[in-house]
Amino acid sequence: MAIKRFGISLNSTLLKRFDTLLEKKGYNNRSEAIRDLIRDTLVKDDLEYGDNDTVGSITIVYSHDTRELTDTLTELQHRFHTSIISSLHVHLDHHNCLEVIIIKGKGKEIKKIADRLIGTKGVKHGKLSMTTTGKNL
Amino acid sequence: MAIKRFGISLNSTLLKRFDTLLEKKGYNNRSEAIRDLIRDTLVKDDLEYGDNDTVGSITIVYSHDTRELTDTLTELQHRFHTSIISSLHVHLDHHNCLEVIIIKGKGKEIKKIADRLIGTKGVKHGKLSMTTTGKNL
Amino acid sequence: MAIKRFGISLNSTLLKRFDTLLEKKGYNNRSEAIRDLIRDTLVKDDLEYGDNDTVGSITIVYSHDTRELTDTLTELQHRFHTSIISSLHVHLDHHNCLEVIIIKGKGKEIKKIADRLIGTKGVKHGKLSMTTTGKNL
Amino acid sequence: MAIKRFGISLNSTLLKRFDTLLEKKGYNNRSEAIRDLIRDTLVKDDLEYGDNDTVGSITIVYSHDTRELTDTLTELQHRFHTSIISSLHVHLDHHNCLEVIIIKGKGKEIKKIADRLIGTKGVKHGKLSMTTTGKNL
Repeated sequence: MAIKRFGISLNSTLLKRFDTLLEKKGYNNRSEAIRDLIRDTLVKDDLEYGDNDTVGSITIVYSHDTRELTDTLTELQHRFHTSIISSLHVHLDHHNCLEVIIIKGKGKEIKKIADRLIGTKGVKHGKLSMTTTGKNL
Repeated sequence: MAIKRFGISLNSTLLKRFDTLLEKKGYNNRSEAIRDLIRDTLVKDDLEYGDNDTVGSITIVYSHDTRELTDTLTELQHRFHTSIISSLHVHLDHHNCLEVIIIKGKGKEIKKIADRLIGTKGVKHGKLSMTTTGKNL
Repeated sequence: MAIKRFGISLNSTLLKRFDTLLEKKGYNNRSEAIRDLIRDTLVKDDLEYGDNDTVGSITIVYSHDTRELTDTLTELQHRFHTSIISSLHVHLDHHNCLEVIIIKGKGKEIKKIADRLIGTKGVKHGKLSMTTTGKNL
Repeated sequence: MAIKRFGISLNSTLLKRFDTLLEKKGYNNRSEAIRDLIRDTLVKDDLEYGDNDTVGSITIVYSHDTRELTDTLTELQHRFHTSIISSLHVHLDHHNCLEVIIIKGKGKEIKKIADRLIGTKGVKHGKLSMTTTGKNL
């Protein structure tokens, strides 16, 4: 892919503060940090207005003592098996489990599946984090 | 203030998408858009880790039929009069009022005042939006 | 309006933690706190899916040394005068101003006006905070 | 664990809207929905003020053509092996990978690791989603 280069200008106080932040965050150079800011803006805009396929990562924490959830998860995975790409299960302690479910599809469908999972009895906390397919970024 | 200039590089697909977004958002040039991204990142970092004075804007919507709120607002303004800079009142309809309260101070104090306001009986919705004093940006 | 009453059940540990939080936030009773949680959820859903009029509060911080912004603000206010309800101006220091603009309309239009304001040269930080008309809440 | 029960009151319009939303989100009863709202509030407060161990889920999307990232991941996993509980790798397409890394620890440490991962060259998008250990919820 062709690499383009352009210049940006800003006042020295702002630049100094930005450089300090980059060092703290472990960035090696300004270009990479600015590319990240640009990509994050594009991903946000995609989520709000885009009609393309996107990817969501749902993290739920639940008590496995509640059997119903396992059934709901299984039932959801069957119903939405074309959308759910993969999942990860972590045993947090004797009672609590964490599960991450990766879903690909339209934003609305991903949100619907997330709502169903988070609303299930036994799920203590759930969060949907929207990301990207990585295409055109 | 001294103006510094530096170059950044990115692939042409990413640049094209960024330019399209800037046009949509009404930006005239890339430098200004990138400065905005940089300043937004600094403001976020300030809020999370900073110990300097910052500025918060609290927007509440309430029914003025509930008298208690007016009292609480007055009482809060007296107690925190050194922090509250200004406020704006809007009559949304016969029953509903919107009020914006601008507060300057440490992040924790601003959040505390916001919690008190939003928790008051009669307040239907409240949101704290953290911004900046504008210094060193 | 008719007042309805219903019971909810939760385990004692969760209830104790909730009560502690309510005290910290200055709530006087659980009903009010839970009504706030319910209203906040409805407002969020409205913003994402609703097609009704809503209200946005845009907070911008800018240096008044940049004349262009004043012009843009005036120009925007003329173009969108039916949407902009009110605005508040605060002098933060010799250089920095804070302005809050209250807008009523469809979510998309509010976002468009916010983008235009935040993208204007001289605006150091801008944030759109979506709230509600207060109707049916 | 002892189950407590208490009543809450709200006006009929608000209750009707809440019930409609619950049906849309797939909730079976109001108690579960309100418990979720309560737990979400407690988790948010924990993240902001708490000093206890918590759990974060970092989702990154990157191009595996960039070798450096694999090295950084390995290096980070060695350095923070006591914090990283588990990880999941998904092949999105020929070039793009998605990785979820589950971390347990203090909020600040989790954020630091997330910053390092997201700042690494080749990472196109990264998001930290804070959740909970599930204890006392």
